[in-house]
Amino acid sequence: MPKDLPLITTAPVVRRDAARNREALLRAAAELIESCGVDDLTTEAVAARAGVGKGTVFRRFGSREGLMASLLNHREEEWQASVISGPPPLGPGAPPMERLLAFGASRLRHHREQAALIEAAGTTWGENYAVLGFVSLHVRMLLSQLGVQGDLGYLATALVAPLGVPVLRQLMDAGGMSEAQVVAGWNDLVARVVAQPSATRSS
Amino acid sequence: MPKDLPLITTAPVVRRDAARNREALLRAAAELIESCGVDDLTTEAVAARAGVGKGTVFRRFGSREGLMASLLNHREEEWQASVISGPPPLGPGAPPMERLLAFGASRLRHHREQAALIEAAGTTWGENYAVLGFVSLHVRMLLSQLGVQGDLGYLATALVAPLGVPVLRQLMDAGGMSEAQVVAGWNDLVARVVAQPSATRSS
Repeated sequence: MPKDLPLITTAPVVRRDAARNREALLRAAAELIESCGVDDLTTEAVAARAGVGKGTVFRRFGSREGLMASLLNHREEEWQASVISGPPPLGPGAPPMERLLAFGASRLRHHREQAALIEAAGTTWGENYAVLGFVSLHVRMLLSQLGVQGDLGYLATALVAPLGVPVLRQLMDAGGMSEAQVVAGWNDLVARVVAQPSATRSS
Repeated sequence: MPKDLPLITTAPVVRRDAARNREALLRAAAELIESCGVDDLTTEAVAARAGVGKGTVFRRFGSREGLMASLLNHREEEWQASVISGPPPLGPGAPPMERLLAFGASRLRHHREQAALIEAAGTTWGENYAVLGFVSLHVRMLLSQLGVQGDLGYLATALVAPLGVPVLRQLMDAGGMSEAQVVAGWNDLVARVVAQPSATRSS
């Protein structure tokens, strides 16, 4: 039980400091990743650049993985904002097929840019159902607007799956496909899903 | 440089012992997983059941993850053998569409059964391009036999992606879909991919 009145007034100061440190650490981590990549990033370097002690990194983020996950969440929020309220065709205002193809290319680019960070964040972030839920729901909404019949929840998830980091690594890093080839392949997949009532369902 | 002649004759004995221990450990691990699940499996328990010292586990498999990966490889080989030379419709002899639908249902079941093991094996096994390559090539061959036009390598990978463990966890564990619903969704996806020349390519 706290018995010192000053706690009541110092608590907000602590919270403000914490928030300021958190932002400074995220900015420092982003700048270091920009110049040196994710693999060489140390918590010591991030703390030094942010002008705080190394212990502050662990107090604010729990671990190096936690710092990566927070940075990733920040970038995911920016990307989601561009889908929800950014300019068309990714954002609202374009016809649904244009939005869907813009989504695929943008999601692929986002995952390629964040791949090292996603892998560094590990299971802290890797199976983030909140993120998967957002992208699946967005694709499902567009499939519905396009008049696609069938299990739209399943089809949306199946269209999102090949845009995941492990599949992109398989296709591009191991398989040597270019970004343009992968985008063309995904657009073809979308065209088949959207154009064709299922032979299985109509039989 | 070896200078003791006995090495020449003892080496095969050591290799025979190593192979026997390896098999005994894999069998012990499989039996323990059957009764207690993957999460509670300890290397001590596996060693004790196989009648060897704990050090033998690490000599043969490197780590607990390595043991899981070896067990997984063993099961993957069995599954691949059933595709290559097992009875139809999964194995050869059925029409390509029947083989493709049998592949999807069987791969889904295999991944559900091995999901805990795949996750326990972690990155040792998780991004196993040899396995991904086999399944993609198999689907690509069937798409080709079905006369599908387009980038068959991409389409095969895109059809395999929603059968991966993380997507199945999202659909079934987080989303509450039944195995029958997921199989029906995948079959519908396949029917769309196979039935329809791409609107994008034909325009």
